[in-house]
Amino acid sequence: MRYNTLSVDVDDTGIATLQLNRPGQLNAFTVEMANELVDFFTGVNARDDIRAIVVTGSGRAFCAGMDLSVEGNVFGLDETLQPTLADMRERLDDPAIFKGVRDTGGRVTLSIFDCNKPVIAAINGAAVGIGATMTLAMDFRLASDKARIGFVFGRLGIVPEACSSWFLPRIVGLSQALEWTYSADILDAQTALDGGLLKAVLPPEQLLDEACALARRITQNRSPVAVALTRQMMMRNSAQPHPLEAHRVDSLAVFYTSTRDGKEGVQAFREKRPPQFSPSTELPPFCEEWLGRPD
Amino acid sequence: MRYNTLSVDVDDTGIATLQLNRPGQLNAFTVEMANELVDFFTGVNARDDIRAIVVTGSGRAFCAGMDLSVEGNVFGLDETLQPTLADMRERLDDPAIFKGVRDTGGRVTLSIFDCNKPVIAAINGAAVGIGATMTLAMDFRLASDKARIGFVFGRLGIVPEACSSWFLPRIVGLSQALEWTYSADILDAQTALDGGLLKAVLPPEQLLDEACALARRITQNRSPVAVALTRQMMMRNSAQPHPLEAHRVDSLAVFYTSTRDGKEGVQAFREKRPPQFSPSTELPPFCEEWLGRPD
Amino acid sequence: MRYNTLSVDVDDTGIATLQLNRPGQLNAFTVEMANELVDFFTGVNARDDIRAIVVTGSGRAFCAGMDLSVEGNVFGLDETLQPTLADMRERLDDPAIFKGVRDTGGRVTLSIFDCNKPVIAAINGAAVGIGATMTLAMDFRLASDKARIGFVFGRLGIVPEACSSWFLPRIVGLSQALEWTYSADILDAQTALDGGLLKAVLPPEQLLDEACALARRITQNRSPVAVALTRQMMMRNSAQPHPLEAHRVDSLAVFYTSTRDGKEGVQAFREKRPPQFSPSTELPPFCEEWLGRPD
Repeated sequence: MRYNTLSVDVDDTGIATLQLNRPGQLNAFTVEMANELVDFFTGVNARDDIRAIVVTGSGRAFCAGMDLSVEGNVFGLDETLQPTLADMRERLDDPAIFKGVRDTGGRVTLSIFDCNKPVIAAINGAAVGIGATMTLAMDFRLASDKARIGFVFGRLGIVPEACSSWFLPRIVGLSQALEWTYSADILDAQTALDGGLLKAVLPPEQLLDEACALARRITQNRSPVAVALTRQMMMRNSAQPHPLEAHRVDSLAVFYTSTRDGKEGVQAFREKRPPQFSPSTELPPFCEEWLGRPD
Repeated sequence: MRYNTLSVDVDDTGIATLQLNRPGQLNAFTVEMANELVDFFTGVNARDDIRAIVVTGSGRAFCAGMDLSVEGNVFGLDETLQPTLADMRERLDDPAIFKGVRDTGGRVTLSIFDCNKPVIAAINGAAVGIGATMTLAMDFRLASDKARIGFVFGRLGIVPEACSSWFLPRIVGLSQALEWTYSADILDAQTALDGGLLKAVLPPEQLLDEACALARRITQNRSPVAVALTRQMMMRNSAQPHPLEAHRVDSLAVFYTSTRDGKEGVQAFREKRPPQFSPSTELPPFCEEWLGRPD
Repeated sequence: MRYNTLSVDVDDTGIATLQLNRPGQLNAFTVEMANELVDFFTGVNARDDIRAIVVTGSGRAFCAGMDLSVEGNVFGLDETLQPTLADMRERLDDPAIFKGVRDTGGRVTLSIFDCNKPVIAAINGAAVGIGATMTLAMDFRLASDKARIGFVFGRLGIVPEACSSWFLPRIVGLSQALEWTYSADILDAQTALDGGLLKAVLPPEQLLDEACALARRITQNRSPVAVALTRQMMMRNSAQPHPLEAHRVDSLAVFYTSTRDGKEGVQAFREKRPPQFSPSTELPPFCEEWLGRPD
């Protein structure tokens, strides 16, 4: 895992700290960064040594948004196309659509959505545009009191991206989501906290420590398989039109965890010792179908 | 746009103030008012001179609910019918179903849902029954401290309507929605604010000014096309069972805004001048399919 | 309605108090209790003398979770099976799947979801595991200040169940749901209130009185048919991907209540007398299809 735009550090408690690492450009987002983020969040599912991920920015910004200074069309969009909904439904991975139409921010947030480990945003400074929307697919958002957050797309005549229209109203409600995206305001940390976007606002020097402490608290002595299933169940089942679908998935997830890590968990509890759980990669077989791309 | 039950005033900043205008009847709702509201919210999508809509009541009430004093069956329901779910799925616009069964309040809120401009409720007084539920499809609800809001259907042995079972739990949560509709309480403005229904409570004399100021803040120097897409993306994508559908729509919306108004937006930003965006009617071609009625 | 693990008391105002009644085992959950709860919540729909249900625990606990002291596999899971998503979609009631795979907690919460009467949790003490998740399908959660609530599954290497991945994020938001289920913390009543899980925290001696008062307030002089429809509309319609489905159901619910109990409601209002509504069992005919199990 060596990247040009990211740095990754894994400590001996299984917490990976992922830094957006273009500090000279305020960690502005590029297609290369998008590809590296997708590679990281996809690859991390196969790494048993990583239990949780903390995402932060190098230097004084978190991520200043799309880097508009890069030569050519930074989005890589192919203006000769006239893409339709049918294109997006039937040939999403066709190279012409993949490179020429698909929103790069959305490729990143979908890979975070599909990640099997908890992901914590530690917003250390400016988080603007994709710098703001990429955090919406993460489990928790902590911010420094110096953070500034802006869904600024409207200032440039464009729309919010990165599946933020799916995530943001679920986090802060529809009215707040509309106000922040219409107005394109730059929010200070307290305003973002009051609006329900953040879990906590912290002094800058405590931000990373608190994020890592939270990461440890939710993964230490936990079954990585149960954590992965819990994350996917909460994210996916809650969006279904009826609880019966949750019952189907729950039943399988309870069945497989109870007959495997659950036995060790109960025994360790009775013997008052730390449990020894299966590696994170041993997801039950139904996950392959369940976690695949929907129709 | 001349109506019997409504008055419409458009100012030179593109803000339309829509008054429910039957002050002698506390703006009570009739089938004529329903038809005029649907006509307004549908027609406004074709009017480039209107950027946002403020809805308020004439006189001391916002809307006192269905006018039960009108002769005959105010709902126009045809009691000889035994309508089924299949009727509602297969022949919703069949005249017998359209006139004899369909909830008039729901026809209004669906037209507000489909509106391409931000809609702000300025609740100046009593908002009861359909007077309360029609505001749920609007982007923001501001209220005078004299406002009284009541989902009072239960007092009469009937059920909440106007798609309020879709909107209200999304705005205030399921428990609060159930309590207010079961109890049929008349809420004062502070209670409605505390419960999450309102964005703000204001002195009566400031209500309209604040609503218009908010309308201006979210539309001035904005691309009307991007505003329309943002509104529809937030309302529709957030209700989908998986973020992939948002990614499909996002990608198209980013593609078309970036290659059109986005260019002007970036250039105006660099040249430090106000942008000149396309008219609101130039929605990208995928909208016709996307914004149509679902199966 | 005579049960081994439950006691039921119906007062003359139509409020049923359902006690989880294994006080010597802190009302720990067994398969027998699951079956009795499903029987109660299914059967209550046919009982016109019951208008609302208050659920509480006997003795000092609400429910201490799955009873791990029962001999054999308390879940009844058949470890020789390798169940798939197809099994859960196509043969959910096949005896091998019903007994050997399906989550018992989910059978209980689905029966509460399908209940046509308001259900109020009066959490008098420890509510742990299924003791916590079973309350999520209820309309309101009141708690004693002595209550302790824990989604503790993660401590044992298993996942949250009982459709809690559908209910909990809808009640408290995704981030809070993830934090509580990852961490498996035991929450005191104030923390649960602050997080949005509870409607109120009360002194122990006031808990049942307040729960019954709320139950009366939302059912007295109400049409039981309209209450049943309101509950199902709010729970089901709000989860649909588009408000049009709500409009279809609303229209039918408005049609049938307006042309039946609504007439009596308006007349009683005009005559300033208490209304005489139809019995709770006279649901309109479309409910059979609408309230059935979805595909």
